[in-house]
This record gives sequence, structure tokens and C-alpha cells, in this order.
Amino acid sequence: MAEMSKAEIAKFLMQGTFTGKLATVKKDGSSHVVPIWFVLDNENNRHKVGNIIFTTGESSTKANNIRQDNRVSICVDDQVPPFSFVTIFGIAKIYPYKRKEVLKWATKIAERYMGKSNAEAYGRRNSEESSIIVRIKPTKIIGENKIVGWD
Amino acid sequence: MAEMSKAEIAKFLMQGTFTGKLATVKKDGSSHVVPIWFVLDNENNRHKVGNIIFTTGESSTKANNIRQDNRVSICVDDQVPPFSFVTIFGIAKIYPYKRKEVLKWATKIAERYMGKSNAEAYGRRNSEESSIIVRIKPTKIIGENKIVGWD
Repeated sequence: MAEMSKAEIAKFLMQGTFTGKLATVKKDGSSHVVPIWFVLDNENNRHKVGNIIFTTGESSTKANNIRQDNRVSICVDDQVPPFSFVTIFGIAKIYPYKRKEVLKWATKIAERYMGKSNAEAYGRRNSEESSIIVRIKPTKIIGENKIVGWD
Repeated sequence: MAEMSKAEIAKFLMQGTFTGKLATVKKDGSSHVVPIWFVLDNENNRHKVGNIIFTTGESSTKANNIRQDNRVSICVDDQVPPFSFVTIFGIAKIYPYKRKEVLKWATKIAERYMGKSNAEAYGRRNSEESSIIVRIKPTKIIGENKIVGWD
């Protein structure tokens, strides 16, 4: 097992179409985990993680959970050997709807996951009035180049 | 978006080296999520999910969290279009150490993720006295063949 550097972590998080698995806590105190599409807001310095941005429906379970408790964690992993992974703990902030902002991020995110040619259509679709931006500011970051089952 | 059948979910969970992202809740009430290697205990009926089995260190964060609150969730997803995913909510049970049992499951799990030729070595390594078996009995299963960002 080898710890990743911050630059390796930033690169890993933006590798191809790796999704984030966002874990939140439900009202009853149990966990909830679903995949998300995301990008990093780190244009000033691509060697740092910066903030994690994703969009979601304003009444999605994850949005409701975040309103209840804004402490979240996200796992991104490679599903082939050596099964490297990153887990980020952070504080999530939900932004009030502003079409221009949502459209900007939804399009960036769509480009990552569905390609340049689909970005505009997906970006538009995912920036409707029921969509919100969530920004996660990391408080703790773990990154390991490792065999995940080997401990 | 299309819901998967139970048989599709069981097949999806055992596809290749897909890892589970296990979400638990820490003592402070915030979430924790990490990748796990797992197999299904569904030999009686491969079209059903059965139970989810993984091994971990007895003093790992996930084991400690489960001892605190045995309600867990697990997400398994495909990181390429159409980004299908399964999320399982369940109750986790930790078993007291029995070398034979741990060795059996650790070897099955290692075979899935590291191949037949490595299974024995990994199985032995992951069945030391500090290793425990965790069995998750699903209480709710969601499976979708879908574009994850499309909502």
C-alpha cells in the first residue's frame, strides 16, 4: 500500500469517467450511498484537489440528506488491480438556483462523462429549475495506490 | 432509466472485479465510505442477491462503525455509459473469528479479484487472526440501468 500525493489524488479523481460514490446520512441516522458525476473546481492549480462539484435534483435523497447534515464522504476507485482509491471527507454546500451557474457546471460535468458532442444537450437537461449545484470542500483526503483487499 | 430485475442485480453485483463502496456511519454521526472486495452468498439461487460477504481487519474503521450501528449501504456501479448501478441497504453482522470460515470466504473473494492463481496466497493472508467476516443481509435493493447524471 502506498499513499498518493495530493497531485496524484487530483489526477486520479479526474481520470476518465470515474464516478464518485457519495455517502450521506439519512434522517434515521443510517447511511445512503449513490454514484455521482462530478468535476473538480481546481482551475487555479490542477495539482490540488480544490472543491468537488456536482449537480442533482433539488428534491433528491442526497440533497435532502445534505440539508439535514452537510458532512459527506466520497469514494472514487479503480475497479481493476491494484484497486487504487481515494476517499474524501468534506462539507457540502447547496447553492440557490442560478441558471447560468448550473448550466456552466452541468455542461462541464456532462462533457466529462458523455463526451464533447453530448455535453450541450446533457448540460441543458441537467440545468433545469429543479437542478442545484452542490460544492464539497474537503476536510480530509485519503488516497492509496493499493490492493484494496490486502489488509 | 430502467429498473433492473433481481436476477439482473445479482448478475451485475458479481460482474468481473466490480468493487462495493461500503458506507457506514462514524461515532460522530457523519458518513464513511471505502471500497470493499465482496462476493454473494447465493449458491442456492444465483438469480437472487442472497447475502453480501466481505472480510476486513477486526479493528478497521468499517468494522468499528458496524459495531456502533449495523445499518449499512453498499453501492456498486459501472464507470462507463450507461453508468448502471446498484445500491443495497442492509444489516451487517460480524462473526467471531473461525479460521476455516474466514479462509473459505477470503479465498473465494481473492479468486474473484486477483484470479485463481493468486487466490490461495491472498486467501491465507486475509484470513489471519485479525480478520473477520462481515455478512450483510439486504433490506432494500435498488438497481438501475441508467445514465446516472441524467436526473
